Amino acid sequence: MNVKNSPDAPSVCILGLGLIGGSLLRDLAAAGFNAYGWNRSESTVRAATADGYDVTGNLEDVLVRAREDNALLVLGVPMPALDSLLEAIAEHAPECGLTDVTSVKAPVLERVRAHGLEARFVGGHPMAGTADSGWKATMHGLFDGAVWVVAHDNAPIGSAGQAPSRTNPWTKTWHAVVDMAHAAGAVVVPAHAKNHDRAVARISHLPHIVAETVAIGGDLGGPLALSLAASSFRDATRVAGTEPHLVRAMCENNREGLVEALDEAVELIRQAREDLASGGSVRGLTEDGFAARGRFEARAGRSKGDATNRPIFNVHPGKPRWISQLDAAEQAGAEITII
Amino acid sequence: MNVKNSPDAPSVCILGLGLIGGSLLRDLAAAGFNAYGWNRSESTVRAATADGYDVTGNLEDVLVRAREDNALLVLGVPMPALDSLLEAIAEHAPECGLTDVTSVKAPVLERVRAHGLEARFVGGHPMAGTADSGWKATMHGLFDGAVWVVAHDNAPIGSAGQAPSRTNPWTKTWHAVVDMAHAAGAVVVPAHAKNHDRAVARISHLPHIVAETVAIGGDLGGPLALSLAASSFRDATRVAGTEPHLVRAMCENNREGLVEALDEAVELIRQAREDLASGGSVRGLTEDGFAARGRFEARAGRSKGDATNRPIFNVHPGKPRWISQLDAAEQAGAEITII
Repeated sequence: MNVKNSPDAPSVCILGLGLIGGSLLRDLAAAGFNAYGWNRSESTVRAATADGYDVTGNLEDVLVRAREDNALLVLGVPMPALDSLLEAIAEHAPECGLTDVTSVKAPVLERVRAHGLEARFVGGHPMAGTADSGWKATMHGLFDGAVWVVAHDNAPIGSAGQAPSRTNPWTKTWHAVVDMAHAAGAVVVPAHAKNHDRAVARISHLPHIVAETVAIGGDLGGPLALSLAASSFRDATRVAGTEPHLVRAMCENNREGLVEALDEAVELIRQAREDLASGGSVRGLTEDGFAARGRFEARAGRSKGDATNRPIFNVHPGKPRWISQLDAAEQAGAEITII
Repeated sequence: MNVKNSPDAPSVCILGLGLIGGSLLRDLAAAGFNAYGWNRSESTVRAATADGYDVTGNLEDVLVRAREDNALLVLGVPMPALDSLLEAIAEHAPECGLTDVTSVKAPVLERVRAHGLEARFVGGHPMAGTADSGWKATMHGLFDGAVWVVAHDNAPIGSAGQAPSRTNPWTKTWHAVVDMAHAAGAVVVPAHAKNHDRAVARISHLPHIVAETVAIGGDLGGPLALSLAASSFRDATRVAGTEPHLVRAMCENNREGLVEALDEAVELIRQAREDLASGGSVRGLTEDGFAARGRFEARAGRSKGDATNRPIFNVHPGKPRWISQLDAAEQAGAEITII
């Protein structure tokens, strides 16, 4: 299962082996990284070990090992479990580079700051997932072609405005996170935490709330409606099959951005309702929605796996203006390549 | 392309060769039916003819032929084009059995009645489609495993309450429609027009309005949001890629049912918005949505092509209580088999 890693293979320690953390462990092990992990639940440790992975249920042990390896730590647990994990890291492995894979970025950065770990922290979020969860759902290749957001809010900008040097611990962590994302087959798009959170409110958390709503609406139609439901209902409600506590963890930690997106959605639907009730037309909504979907398809392709059409920006880590290069890429929604 | 049809092969004349009508022509020709069609647009006639199908642009000619063949006529045009077609049918082929494939049933029945054609009319609606339209989108197998709703509102019930006999023209048309649906690979679920329309408001037209809304919401997030959009956004907005005029034709002809579904949806989303804004939880919505999706999956399977778990009811056309058998199947959302 594991490729034998070379002595200078990067070390990555993944804390939490659910769908995202577990799939990442599979990918990094396959890519020859010195990759290992921890999970709280014994059954996950057993299952991952049985699949040939280097996994433990002892948090202190794994953190001591990560400190010795100078491993990059990956926070792979949902928000509610974050504080206890950060407390252990601050105690046992405070010098390790630190990243996360959580679907909201500002609240994670706030918790990291509260534990005094921000100097080596670079937030991350792979835009990949299924409606399944847990080790049993993990797979090699989950991140293939996916966007991995890497946040640069807390880049240590000097008093004269200079960007951090190539040898700055933050830069080193940033580089390690980008390398890890690339090794997992993802492309990297940089973003500030707040901008990321507002964007995912629109393109992930809003779809989740709406999917729950449509699922309930169909179900209220009883057996006949459920029997008639076909692909438009199936696709519209797919993510309503996500474990409720995971949806809550996303939405309840991104209130501001999601409230804004929900207000807009309610207004559009309410307007359609009024137009239909008064004998009017939904021409505006259908034409605007069609155009919007067209812009998405132009950027991301029409089906999963299509070639994408995102711009690509070069970034020179350590150069005086390299953080500004990240800002420019963020504004364009661009992937980055490292020079 | 065409299987050579036997002298007693059923004759079906499809009027309008878009995604549904055109795909049906492909399936019926492959099944050995004497299947032919008409389309208003010359380019569609050319393309379908080039693909080996028996297609004309002359409406009067095709109706005269259908009358001679005693063909089942299939109305395959959107609502706005219906009246002129019904007028031509009333003039040239009033004795033919008549059905349709439109996504709303009550307004079509009303137009059919207005043209005096209800004695041989049996409404239908295959629950299949893609976001594409026109002959170029047609395909063999589109209806494979799909539900084909067959409506029985206007079954001619006698003054003593007796169901129509096996030789009644309405029963014959009903049988021909069911046979056609089965030949196309579909399963038949009976429903009254109004119940069908309320159900599809929930499981098709609501998803369309919501998909337009989510597409617009994501697009308003600009390049960063569109770059981060992944599978939850892709699936949630897929049907926003449907031609706007087709979405309007569905929604604007199903106002009553759709307004009811939209009112419920707005209330659920507004409640989630309030809960999030006030620091509360979306537990109720996520748990209800998860349970609803589970009930859908239990009935229809999780992915397209999964085995379904709908009940199956026997129906004995021409028997005294056979229309009541259809009512019972409708209430259960059951497929029917004909004995």
